[in-house]
Amino acid sequence: MTAPAATQSQSVRAEITAANQRFIDAFSRGDVEALARCYTPDAQLLPANSDVVQGTAAIADFWRMVLGLGIASGRLETSEIEQHEDTVIETGRYYLSTSSGDEADRGKYLVVWHRHDGEWRLHRDIWNTSKPAA
Amino acid sequence: MTAPAATQSQSVRAEITAANQRFIDAFSRGDVEALARCYTPDAQLLPANSDVVQGTAAIADFWRMVLGLGIASGRLETSEIEQHEDTVIETGRYYLSTSSGDEADRGKYLVVWHRHDGEWRLHRDIWNTSKPAA
Repeated sequence: MTAPAATQSQSVRAEITAANQRFIDAFSRGDVEALARCYTPDAQLLPANSDVVQGTAAIADFWRMVLGLGIASGRLETSEIEQHEDTVIETGRYYLSTSSGDEADRGKYLVVWHRHDGEWRLHRDIWNTSKPAA
Repeated sequence: MTAPAATQSQSVRAEITAANQRFIDAFSRGDVEALARCYTPDAQLLPANSDVVQGTAAIADFWRMVLGLGIASGRLETSEIEQHEDTVIETGRYYLSTSSGDEADRGKYLVVWHRHDGEWRLHRDIWNTSKPAA
């Protein structure tokens, strides 16, 4: 037997969808301070071609760098949610576009969310491209 | 306040270390069937430059392909464990070597483990390289 499925209430899924929308809205506005506030204070990004990026200031710098590459908007699509009280494990797909609307990247992600000050924040954030190797 | 830290007993850390060692031993032997048995039956790999790889047969095929690239051994280093009953979230670093001992890759991973039939198995497995982009 596999571990029993954890609670996956519709309301948590809606809360994570809303938190992802706040993230995407901040991204589309180019508001890296708001983006960084979507994360817990001790959050870690695990981006490809980089060491671990830890903490609010480094996370803001990372997204500033990404926006500087001409990536202008994104879309997140949740595949699955596994909840354990104040922790949610989410897998999904991301789609990034340039300002001219071309596809900049598409891939998969796994985010560990923690409830922090009453709201869901990204705590661990790892993703990679689904595009073929160059 | 951040969500209270989940249970992180020494014994669970030791169990995950042992499960990782079984994985690495199977990898070093080139035993893809044993590797696939380290995963839950409904496990997913999320490798870069690929769509999601789901299920035992597809996971065996994936590792057969990796071994075919000349990657001969690996090392896993756990950074952090967060346990929620029969689920463990592990982050860490990996190091892969060729048969001649050269570094093939190094990077970061996040694994969601589920307890399945009394043993810890990888359920979601995502990683990416820490090497600079080519």
